Amino acid sequence: MILKPKGTYDIYGDTAKYYNYINEVFKTVCEYYNYEYIRTPIFEDSELFHRSVGETSDIVSKETYDFKDRGDRNLTLRPEGTAGVVRSFIENKMYGDVCQPKKFYYSGTMYRYERPQAGRYRELSQIGVEVLGSNSPLMDAEVISLAYRLLEEMGIEVTVKINTLGDQESRNAYREALVSYLEPNIDSLCSDCKKRLTTNPLRILDCKVDKDNEVLINAPKITDYLNEESKTRFDKVLEYLTYLDVDYEVDASIVRGLDYYNHTVFELVADIPSLGSATTVCAGGRYNNLVSFLGGPDTPGIGFASGVDRLIHVLQEINSEKEIEPAIDVYVMAVNEEEKLTALRLVQDLRWSEVKCEMDTLDKGLKAQFKQADRYNARTLIILNSEDLQKGIITVKDNLTKEETKVDESEILDYIISNL
Amino acid sequence: MILKPKGTYDIYGDTAKYYNYINEVFKTVCEYYNYEYIRTPIFEDSELFHRSVGETSDIVSKETYDFKDRGDRNLTLRPEGTAGVVRSFIENKMYGDVCQPKKFYYSGTMYRYERPQAGRYRELSQIGVEVLGSNSPLMDAEVISLAYRLLEEMGIEVTVKINTLGDQESRNAYREALVSYLEPNIDSLCSDCKKRLTTNPLRILDCKVDKDNEVLINAPKITDYLNEESKTRFDKVLEYLTYLDVDYEVDASIVRGLDYYNHTVFELVADIPSLGSATTVCAGGRYNNLVSFLGGPDTPGIGFASGVDRLIHVLQEINSEKEIEPAIDVYVMAVNEEEKLTALRLVQDLRWSEVKCEMDTLDKGLKAQFKQADRYNARTLIILNSEDLQKGIITVKDNLTKEETKVDESEILDYIISNL
Repeated sequence: MILKPKGTYDIYGDTAKYYNYINEVFKTVCEYYNYEYIRTPIFEDSELFHRSVGETSDIVSKETYDFKDRGDRNLTLRPEGTAGVVRSFIENKMYGDVCQPKKFYYSGTMYRYERPQAGRYRELSQIGVEVLGSNSPLMDAEVISLAYRLLEEMGIEVTVKINTLGDQESRNAYREALVSYLEPNIDSLCSDCKKRLTTNPLRILDCKVDKDNEVLINAPKITDYLNEESKTRFDKVLEYLTYLDVDYEVDASIVRGLDYYNHTVFELVADIPSLGSATTVCAGGRYNNLVSFLGGPDTPGIGFASGVDRLIHVLQEINSEKEIEPAIDVYVMAVNEEEKLTALRLVQDLRWSEVKCEMDTLDKGLKAQFKQADRYNARTLIILNSEDLQKGIITVKDNLTKEETKVDESEILDYIISNL
Repeated sequence: MILKPKGTYDIYGDTAKYYNYINEVFKTVCEYYNYEYIRTPIFEDSELFHRSVGETSDIVSKETYDFKDRGDRNLTLRPEGTAGVVRSFIENKMYGDVCQPKKFYYSGTMYRYERPQAGRYRELSQIGVEVLGSNSPLMDAEVISLAYRLLEEMGIEVTVKINTLGDQESRNAYREALVSYLEPNIDSLCSDCKKRLTTNPLRILDCKVDKDNEVLINAPKITDYLNEESKTRFDKVLEYLTYLDVDYEVDASIVRGLDYYNHTVFELVADIPSLGSATTVCAGGRYNNLVSFLGGPDTPGIGFASGVDRLIHVLQEINSEKEIEPAIDVYVMAVNEEEKLTALRLVQDLRWSEVKCEMDTLDKGLKAQFKQADRYNARTLIILNSEDLQKGIITVKDNLTKEETKVDESEILDYIISNL
């Protein structure tokens, strides 16, 4: 028997219902915020991710799915969604469109060659947005408001944890201070963080292993190294969030793992006790240098992404009793060939009238069909039998009250539709 | 500048609207037909496709995206959707579920290492359904009815071209007759078909190169080699389609390129003059041996798939003037900081009330904002100015009639919602 590849999974059944629900809510919220859908390829030139995500980030250094196609091109299954959208923005010259900024949303699978563990897959689903072309703090507030609304709409209560990395000058000043502070304490850091001290020191601040390390808790904070412009900008974002009643707290440990972020970075954190406290359900930030870095005109950017698998998990925890989708409307019962023929047509007519219905195609007897109707949680039963059909009559049964009604065959469609 | 990989493409702008529209109609129709969503991984063990699609089919012999992961596993980006769904059905033991048959729909990208040409990509989008567990001709009729409805719902008029390949006995008898007939005429066949004569002779019948070859036009027809059971079965399917008012014609040249089909095979063909006559927009068939062949219990199957890229193309041809999605509802104008702050909150409140709206985040002047509102095709303008705001008043302008109304700030939300 051939099995699914290691680290992948199938979505079906109840999980599929949550998956569809999340995508629908996301699409709806994004449309009201005037974002447009974008889909970029599942693989890109490897160079795109090595340049954008950064050679020193964990994602590229050990976790990408690289392969060569038959034409010997170096391709990589995308590890995240931002780089592809930015590549598309540049390649398709969207910076020249009359409506600016360009506001996109996407939904798709991402690939990381991780050691599979509970809830960590090699193929993962993400939804996200990217806004290219506005550096206004208003846009930071909008993007965070969108994420906040998305989760609220799904019934997930969150707090926004927010921080700033400042501009390049501020970030450089802070990096220098951080390295000077950490160097004498290098022995207390985990082995990954020892390497990060030279490659990507800010990343040490959100290390999972070292998170309770006193040395990190007492480390210098970025907020003390911001230049005036970066500080004013950050204050403006916070002012807007306050005005929008978005629940936030400033958290200096938020730095994001990717090299390309600057200024505002944020995470939306849900408090689901059964999943351990403080589950991050959404994360993003500003990346004003990425477009020019990838060869496009100087264009600011901001976005976020959210892991659908984790959202499904959270929804299952908080809605464990709630059904995401209703059952079928009607089950049509038919046993002999004459009844089946009538059922076939009736079922088509009902479905074409937007009634969700089902009939037997396995030659089951009437008793088994009643059982099947219950398993589908059918609200209404239509019971066809040849004798009645000869008289032009059809029996309709309310599957809850068990009440039966005789309906004229020519009126059955109208009757069902008006009684739904 | 880094470009998208050869043979791939980005979906955005108007194309994205069609793409979303097709997926929404598909999902809605499938839900009424009581199909459930399934998503399987984008890559599978290469063995799965080599076994299911068949070593001799064109797809596997020259067109798959094979690669090795870092663990030296042989993986293949899926060339089609059926094999993955069947693999998932077996692996997740869905044949044991109480509700049978299992009826699935999927939407996703497929990968073929083809020479890129107009409309032929290496990454392509498909929607499709698979039904596992019913061999009833009723189910053949249902699946074809679903495909027919899907296209009708999108405004695409189609004819169903249908054929049968019979069961294994019939297919073997026909294969023998066909080979005996073609062997003396081998020189008149194209080079690919010469090879197919020993590997996959039925496939010769739908060869694009040889389609006008007299030898093929006069070839023996499968319908003359069907055993009684296969013939009765096919007649039943046709009877049901007639009864369902589905427009069909029997076409002996329909054989499908994949090895695993038997009995009913079909294509839905649209007549779009500007795309050349007879564009196939959907194709499928029955595959009763695939599940057992892949190591599962003996389980009949049937399904179809439809290329989203071609559907988009068809919709663009037939709807060239029709807009798939409306414009934005409201554009909120604000210039100074006080106005912007009010706008930010108002825009959030409107969006959270399901009003699609937009504001400026690029520090544009009022004139440029009017222009922007027109480009977004905004139906209503909200014009904020500090003087009015001090008095608690907001100006609303109908962007069609140009009529202006002064509204109390406290009532603006209700006013907009009730006037949409």
